[in-house]
Parts: sequence; structure tokens; C-alpha cells
Amino acid sequence: MSTFSELVQSRRSAMNFVEGVKIPQNELEEMFSLARLAPSAFNLQHAHYKVISDDTVKEEIRKGAYGQYKIHTASAVIVVLGDKNAYQQAPEIYSGLKMLGAMSEEDYDRTIQSINDSYTGKDAFQRDEAIRNASLSAMQFMLIAKDKGWDTCPMIGFDPEAVNATLGLSDNFVPVMLITIGKDNKHKIRPRGYRKPVNEFVEFI
Amino acid sequence: MSTFSELVQSRRSAMNFVEGVKIPQNELEEMFSLARLAPSAFNLQHAHYKVISDDTVKEEIRKGAYGQYKIHTASAVIVVLGDKNAYQQAPEIYSGLKMLGAMSEEDYDRTIQSINDSYTGKDAFQRDEAIRNASLSAMQFMLIAKDKGWDTCPMIGFDPEAVNATLGLSDNFVPVMLITIGKDNKHKIRPRGYRKPVNEFVEFI
Repeated sequence: MSTFSELVQSRRSAMNFVEGVKIPQNELEEMFSLARLAPSAFNLQHAHYKVISDDTVKEEIRKGAYGQYKIHTASAVIVVLGDKNAYQQAPEIYSGLKMLGAMSEEDYDRTIQSINDSYTGKDAFQRDEAIRNASLSAMQFMLIAKDKGWDTCPMIGFDPEAVNATLGLSDNFVPVMLITIGKDNKHKIRPRGYRKPVNEFVEFI
Repeated sequence: MSTFSELVQSRRSAMNFVEGVKIPQNELEEMFSLARLAPSAFNLQHAHYKVISDDTVKEEIRKGAYGQYKIHTASAVIVVLGDKNAYQQAPEIYSGLKMLGAMSEEDYDRTIQSINDSYTGKDAFQRDEAIRNASLSAMQFMLIAKDKGWDTCPMIGFDPEAVNATLGLSDNFVPVMLITIGKDNKHKIRPRGYRKPVNEFVEFI
């Protein structure tokens, strides 16, 4: 069994964190500099993160998440956002490859055109993409965090309006999930939840 | 640098696959038995996968994906689906923990109630959840595949109606993405796409 299999098996969604543990910003920066290598559609990097360690703001987010206690004990709560307007940054993202000569002028023009055709005026697709690509990034982030010794829990139980009100998000950002991060309280771990056998969720054709 | 950091850095979305490479079903089963450990909201395991190695069906999917060549050369194309009705399986998923005594009768009832309150009649939320949770699973799957020596590429450029027509999906399934899997043609690799610096997508509060 490789180290990575062990990592996947050891990552559990933390239900209780050890209170009072600080998470250093430089460790988070290191995690995000790996997380940003996650794939995204057209490499548009739709994921944005707001990492909240400030106690006052954290408690406000907690109120918007129906008072869930683990936000209180977590070292930080991370608001994962997806940017519906990510496609507008395409020229910025692709111009480097063009300048390096790794992408021809024609390829560049075709890519920008294809991105604009896919996203412009397609609000439902923009929203789906925000959720989809931010979630890819979030999963990679949670595995990276575990590898660095931090436990996480993705959370969907929150009121997006309340989180918006606390953070003053602009309209292009979809709140995709919260991630609490900290050190798991190992005394309170319960058995891993039941997982369906492979043949119940995978079909081979 | 840990092995996992190296894995994350070595995973690249494959643009060209070596043609004619077969992927053994038992290897895929092994990958999915690890992928199923990915977190999902309420542990509802919204992700479903259809792994298509059959050449005829694969070419049909390719047509629905605007003819993209990498589907032709990939060992398989995997259709990642999210189940909007995943919440209906909650009793099945939680009854084991209750029977084991790891969850009290009250906890069980509260959990089922909370799941029903979150999902029942909420079509938009069911759809968001299908996309979000299938994407978490898909990212974990792609890292697992890389760890086992397989390259992948997540793809959003396809017509969901065409994929539906080929596979005869029931209405509860949202086609979330395609993943091509195979052996990357290392002679054709281009530089990794530009990634934004951490301070452009992460804010610390």
C-alpha cells in the first residue's frame, strides 16, 4: 500500500476539533500553493477562498451555519467560493503561454473564442462551473491539509445569504461550501460512515 | 517534500493518450474502492460512475463531446454523474451505524429528518449537491488514478443531452463531467498552464 492510499484512508471529516489551536498563515499559504495545481475547466481557476481565523468573524459565520459547534473549535473556517466570472480572466491566464511561444497566436485566439462561447450569457452554466471547479479544488486542498497534519470537514449546512452578509461578497461569487480546519479531537472519533460497495456506484460498459 | 506533494505536482491533465492501452477492470475497481472514501454531504455518496471501455460506446460519447480526439485514444472515458435523489438512500446508509450502536436511535432520527428537510422538494439544491459532491469524488479519483500510474483529464466540453441519449440515464442523474483515463503520451506534453499566485485567490481574515 502506497503512502497516498494511506493518506486517503486516514482522511476523515473531523467532527470535533481541539479548541485553541492556531493555524499559521504560512502553512496555509503552502497548502494553497499546491491546491492551485488542481485542474479546472479551461484552466480558469474558478476557486477562491476566504480563510477566517478572526474569532469575531468566525462566530458570525457560525451563526450563518446554524450555530454548528465545530466552527467554534476549528482553528479556521474557510469559505470556498466559485467565481461565475472566471471566464473573463481567460486572456490574462493564456497570454503567458502565448508569450512563451508554447501556444500559437491561432491556438490562443481559438481558446479565448471557445471560452467566450461556452460561458458568455450562460448564467446557469457559469454557476454549475463555479460549483464544479471550486469543489475539485476543495477536495485537493483537503487532502493536502491532511498530508500536512491538519484535519478538515467540508460543510454544506449554512445559509448562503448570511455568509454573503457577513463577508460582503460580490454577485459573481457562489458560496460553494465551508471547510473547517484544525486538529481533530481524537478522543471523540466515531466509526467511518458506511460506504456503498463499488458495484453500487460504478458501472463498467 | 513528501510523496503526496510530488503526486499533486506530477498530476497533469492529459491532452494526448497512447492509443491502444487497455485498462484492467480490477485496477479500476481498486481505484474506486479508495475513491468512495471521499467526503460527501451527510455521507450521501451522490457520485456515480459509468466507465466506458467499449469502443463503440466510447465513440458515441466522443460524438457527444464535439469529437474530441483524446476520447478516442484514452483507455476509457468515465462519465461522472451526480444523483439528485441521493438523499432517498439515507436510511440505508445510516441504519448500519445505528445497528452497530455507534449512533443512537435519537441521533439516527434527527439525521434522517435533517436530510429530508435539506433536500425534499428542493430541486436546485439537489442539483447543486449532485455537482458538488460528484466533483469532490472525481478529484479524489483522479489523484488515486495518478498514484496507480494512470493519467486523467476532466472534461466539461460535452452535450449532456447527447450523453443522456447514449446511456439512457434516468432523470435523477446529472452528468457532471467526463474523465478520460489512459497513459499520457509524454512526447506531446506542453508546459503546465499559468496558475494565479496564492494572494490572488486566497484572502486571510
